Amino acid sequence: MRVDRLFTDVRLATMAPHRPGLGAIEDGALATRDGRIAWVGPRAEAPAFTARETIRGEGRWLTPGLIDCHTHLVWAGDRAAEFERRLEGATYEEIAREGGGILSTVRATRAASRAELVRAALPRLDALLADGITTVEVKSGYGLEPASEYRQLETAAALAAERPVRIEATFLGAHTLPPEFANDRAGYLRLLCETMIPEVARRRLASAVDAFCEQIAFTPEETRAVFEAARAHGLPVKLHADQLSDTGGAALAASFGALSADHLEYTNAEGVAAMARAGTVAVLLPGAFYTLRETQLPPVESFRRAAVPMAVATDCNPGTSPLLSLLLAMNMAATLFRLTVVECLLGVTRHAAKALGLADDRGTLEPGKRADLALWSIERPAELVYTIGGRPLHARWVGA
Amino acid sequence: MRVDRLFTDVRLATMAPHRPGLGAIEDGALATRDGRIAWVGPRAEAPAFTARETIRGEGRWLTPGLIDCHTHLVWAGDRAAEFERRLEGATYEEIAREGGGILSTVRATRAASRAELVRAALPRLDALLADGITTVEVKSGYGLEPASEYRQLETAAALAAERPVRIEATFLGAHTLPPEFANDRAGYLRLLCETMIPEVARRRLASAVDAFCEQIAFTPEETRAVFEAARAHGLPVKLHADQLSDTGGAALAASFGALSADHLEYTNAEGVAAMARAGTVAVLLPGAFYTLRETQLPPVESFRRAAVPMAVATDCNPGTSPLLSLLLAMNMAATLFRLTVVECLLGVTRHAAKALGLADDRGTLEPGKRADLALWSIERPAELVYTIGGRPLHARWVGA
Repeated sequence: MRVDRLFTDVRLATMAPHRPGLGAIEDGALATRDGRIAWVGPRAEAPAFTARETIRGEGRWLTPGLIDCHTHLVWAGDRAAEFERRLEGATYEEIAREGGGILSTVRATRAASRAELVRAALPRLDALLADGITTVEVKSGYGLEPASEYRQLETAAALAAERPVRIEATFLGAHTLPPEFANDRAGYLRLLCETMIPEVARRRLASAVDAFCEQIAFTPEETRAVFEAARAHGLPVKLHADQLSDTGGAALAASFGALSADHLEYTNAEGVAAMARAGTVAVLLPGAFYTLRETQLPPVESFRRAAVPMAVATDCNPGTSPLLSLLLAMNMAATLFRLTVVECLLGVTRHAAKALGLADDRGTLEPGKRADLALWSIERPAELVYTIGGRPLHARWVGA
Repeated sequence: MRVDRLFTDVRLATMAPHRPGLGAIEDGALATRDGRIAWVGPRAEAPAFTARETIRGEGRWLTPGLIDCHTHLVWAGDRAAEFERRLEGATYEEIAREGGGILSTVRATRAASRAELVRAALPRLDALLADGITTVEVKSGYGLEPASEYRQLETAAALAAERPVRIEATFLGAHTLPPEFANDRAGYLRLLCETMIPEVARRRLASAVDAFCEQIAFTPEETRAVFEAARAHGLPVKLHADQLSDTGGAALAASFGALSADHLEYTNAEGVAAMARAGTVAVLLPGAFYTLRETQLPPVESFRRAAVPMAVATDCNPGTSPLLSLLLAMNMAATLFRLTVVECLLGVTRHAAKALGLADDRGTLEPGKRADLALWSIERPAELVYTIGGRPLHARWVGA
């Protein structure tokens, strides 16, 4: 069998659904051709390969490249000073009066050129990639006006030219109300639904539409309008749902067949059941839970019982989750939310791919899937969840 | 002025006590000679230097190399599987019956050669160093018998030959009762006080003696005996104090003029006052707090009011804090314990040095101090605390 790359002397965590747990193969081999997996299985069962390159793993673990399925990676400005002020006792109101909060990120992001946005995002992207990530979802939502939103999405796409990584851009114009529409919610909704979503779809700037449904953001009715516009333009939806209160967001997302509902600390039983019926992925974001010192836990046991697939992501953003490590997000999901090791690892591979509508394309080591791979210097996959702030990655391939 | 290395075009966080906050100098210079700082100050005030090497920081921040003043870095064996089992619902009793827990680390560490212990510790050390650490304290305490304890301490010292780093070894024979003394506490105390501490002192295997004073470990009376032996042999003491319950550990440590008392979640007002009088540093270990999902916060506001210096460390250990990032320990100290940015940064520099009895030797950028330095790609020091899982280190020098 003629192949491009042959990985041998590796232990495989295939994450494939037809095998239990991690789908482990203790003495495995994997061959790639044209950027996709051509063969994978026990070395003893491998056919004879003719490979351009052979990579001997020396017993290391090979997994699918990790997928961070919820980030706000592209922004300008600096919220570290605000973090410092808050620890010194400043209230949210004082921070806001001083020009801080999300609107300071919006101002700085609007003012930044695409090149400046790329320059600001690259160190963050590099930190993520150093943890074995090969796909990063990136949302807009700090522009909140057409040109700035498009520029944020274009910047996200441009990152893939700077580093070996796949980017999935998501349009989150419905992130918060821009200041110039503070007294005209309906006007911003029209701008979103009649101008921005159609343009994003026409120019293929994003592969999904997201919204923040919350008392401090958009109402369920407003979210519905955004989702209807997305549907009309052929874009799947996702939702920041039930993070700070129970707005019925999970059920709303499910009613639109959303790819995912994200956060979900306050999701109720009806929401869980609706997500199960719709096949909507529950994206858990423990970095925000940790940073906000939230105490309300997402209904993990209900998701388990209802067989709702759970993903885990960094939610990387400057305000509520300045988290640049998906391995650490897994540790937080285990420590704070009590996800098992298998759930954590599925949450950054197979289930994360599903949260992006890419379940058939990546997230497992199976023939036909993209050859996006991570090779780890570990003795067992549990170490990827157990160790906090370690650096276990040996190497990473995007389309090996 | 003839110097070895000149650092220029740098912003300095000197951490020096005669300046407020971080002792920042916006446009600074620093010169080294014979491994120590020869001159530091505003560039505008610098004398003419003749330097063997000039390092231009391009506006980056230069700080003292960070000091991790509480770790258990040297161990053998694997507790990731136990972590996995616990998440799957196994109880501590089941884990213990299966041979897990701290005694599994003791068994594996006893069985390991010095070379095996070095090999196991190096990836952990490398992760720490990648965060800008230049001094690491390493405790014994997984040998619990003379030869194994000495081997752990020798291994710690040997790490300094493998990497550019300074190691401070601490003897923690009083970590837990070894199984062979389960019915003879007095016998183990005699072994500690009459054999091990004298030998550690004679061979200069450690620069301090530590103990774990807790209901599950050693009583205050037993701890006192250990401290008296340490005093008799000229070794300063430290204490794992009041982590899980109020045993009066902080006051006990202070009564022996301890360099530090560590953990301190349950420390009472009397303990805080005694520490203040004795000049004992409060070493906060938020990694263990986080991993154990502890809810009792250490009395930070009391330490502040009493002017007890606070340090922050990883507590890196396989059971309760598998944490390999001191930057992350700072973020946890801020997020979970509400330390300010300045307190966090003092806690891994000046106060961490004091916790090791090295306040005169390192931990600040002042003339005469060791030229242990970290150069950071950041716009403001707060980013070192704010960002979670980032990789901001640009370069690091030990004795520049």
